[in-house]
Amino acid sequence: MQRVACRIEYIGTGFSGYQVQPNGRTVQEELEAALKKLHKGQPVHVSASGRTDAGVHAKGQVIHFDSPLTIPSLRWSKAVNPLLPADIRVSASQHVATNFHARYSAVGKQYRYKVTKREDIFLRNRASFVPTSLNVTHMRAAAEHILGTHDFSSFCAANTSVVDKVRTVTQCDIVEDDEELTFILAGNGFLYNMVRIAVGTLLEIGAGKRAPEDMQHIIAAEDRGAAGKTAPAHGLYLWSVGYAQPMFTSAEKR
Amino acid sequence: MQRVACRIEYIGTGFSGYQVQPNGRTVQEELEAALKKLHKGQPVHVSASGRTDAGVHAKGQVIHFDSPLTIPSLRWSKAVNPLLPADIRVSASQHVATNFHARYSAVGKQYRYKVTKREDIFLRNRASFVPTSLNVTHMRAAAEHILGTHDFSSFCAANTSVVDKVRTVTQCDIVEDDEELTFILAGNGFLYNMVRIAVGTLLEIGAGKRAPEDMQHIIAAEDRGAAGKTAPAHGLYLWSVGYAQPMFTSAEKR
Repeated sequence: MQRVACRIEYIGTGFSGYQVQPNGRTVQEELEAALKKLHKGQPVHVSASGRTDAGVHAKGQVIHFDSPLTIPSLRWSKAVNPLLPADIRVSASQHVATNFHARYSAVGKQYRYKVTKREDIFLRNRASFVPTSLNVTHMRAAAEHILGTHDFSSFCAANTSVVDKVRTVTQCDIVEDDEELTFILAGNGFLYNMVRIAVGTLLEIGAGKRAPEDMQHIIAAEDRGAAGKTAPAHGLYLWSVGYAQPMFTSAEKR
Repeated sequence: MQRVACRIEYIGTGFSGYQVQPNGRTVQEELEAALKKLHKGQPVHVSASGRTDAGVHAKGQVIHFDSPLTIPSLRWSKAVNPLLPADIRVSASQHVATNFHARYSAVGKQYRYKVTKREDIFLRNRASFVPTSLNVTHMRAAAEHILGTHDFSSFCAANTSVVDKVRTVTQCDIVEDDEELTFILAGNGFLYNMVRIAVGTLLEIGAGKRAPEDMQHIIAAEDRGAAGKTAPAHGLYLWSVGYAQPMFTSAEKR
C-alpha cells in the first residue's frame, strides 16, 4: 500500500461541509466516490487536515489515503480529477511515508477571509459583502492583539468539545484593494469558527461599533459572549496547510 | 411614461445568451419577467446596448425601458433587484430622455477577456484556461496593429448579415498579473465575435504559432479564414458601454 497526499481545492457553495454526514452533499463523500471508481469498486477512506463548514471554500485543503495502485507520485491528480465533480479539483499530489497524516502531521494552517466592499454578483457566495465603510487602520490595530499565544475561548463556538483552547496565531494581516479586503490568519491551529468569529469581531471594530483596544479585553475575557458575531461562512477559504517537511514542491506536468 | 436606463451585470454561465429565443433561458426574458411583476402583470419591453452570446458575462451592460411607475430615478435598482434571479443584478439606474436608446445612443463599448494561467476551479466558466506559456511582449506588439480604423472582416464570424465591417478600436491592452491575463478592447463598436476572434488570434501569436507582424496581414486580408480560432465565450465580459452624456454618475444609496 502506498500513502498518497493530495492538495485539493473546492467551491464550498454546493456542499454541506467537508465531512460525510447523513444528509447533504459533502466534499469527503465526493472524494471517496471518485477514489472508489478509480479502485474498481474498492472503498478508499480519505483523511483531511480538518473539516470545513457548509459554504466554506478551500484553495489548499490537504488529504491523504492509502492505495494499492501503482500510479506515479505526481500523476495522482490527473488520475483522480476526471472522476471528480466540477467544484472539486486535485491541484497537486505526491507519495508520502505511511506515518504521514493529513491532520496529525499538520503544523500550521492559513485561512483567508474575503470581504467585498461593493455588491458584485461575481463574488456572490465567494466573499462576504459589507456595505458599511470600514476603518482598516482600526482593524489592523486590533489585529495586533490577536497575534501570539492565547486562550482563544472568546473566539470559539460554544458547542465544541475541545478542552485546550490555547492556540498560537502567527499572522493576522488585512490586505486592501479597491474592491476587496482580505483577512489573512495563520497559526498552529484554529478552534471551531475561530477565524469567522475573529473576523466578525474585527469587522465590528472596523465599523466603529467597538474600539481597537477592546480586542485585548475580548480575548482576555475567555468568553464567546465577549466577542462579535460570527462572520458568514461564504467569505472563508482554507488557504494552505503546513507540514514539517516541504510538500507539493515538484511542479506537476499538466 | 418615463424612460429608465439601468446598468446591469450578469453571470453568463446560466444563460443561452442575452436575447430572447425559443429555447433556453435568456437575460432579456428574466429582466422582462421581473419588470412585468413590478408592473402588476403589464408587459415591459427591454432594449439592451447589444446581445451577448451564451456563456458571455456582463459587468456593465446597459438597458432601457419605458414605465408609467413613479419610482425615483436612482431607486429603480432597489425596486427591480429583489425580483431578479441570483445571476443578474441592476448595479445603477437613472431616468433618461425619451430619445435615449441603449443601443442606438451608444458611442462605444469596452470588452474584457480573461485568461487564467493556472487551472483554478474558482475561475471555471469565468476565465479561459490557457495551459501554454504565452509571450506577452509578442501579443502586445501584435495588439498595436488592431488599434485604429480598419475593415475587420477577418475578425467577424462568417454567419453575419452586417455589411459595413469598418470599426475603430481605441484600446487593445493586455494586463498581466501572477494568475491572469486580461485583454481590454474598446472601440466605437464590435462585429459579431470580433473580440473573441481578436483574442484567439493574439493567443496564437502568444503561443508562438504566428509572428506578431502577421497581425497586420491578417487584418488586411479581410477574410475570417486568415485569423485564429474564436476564443471561448466564458472568458468574455461586456465591461462598459459609453454614451455621449455621462451616465450612472450619481452614487446610489444602498
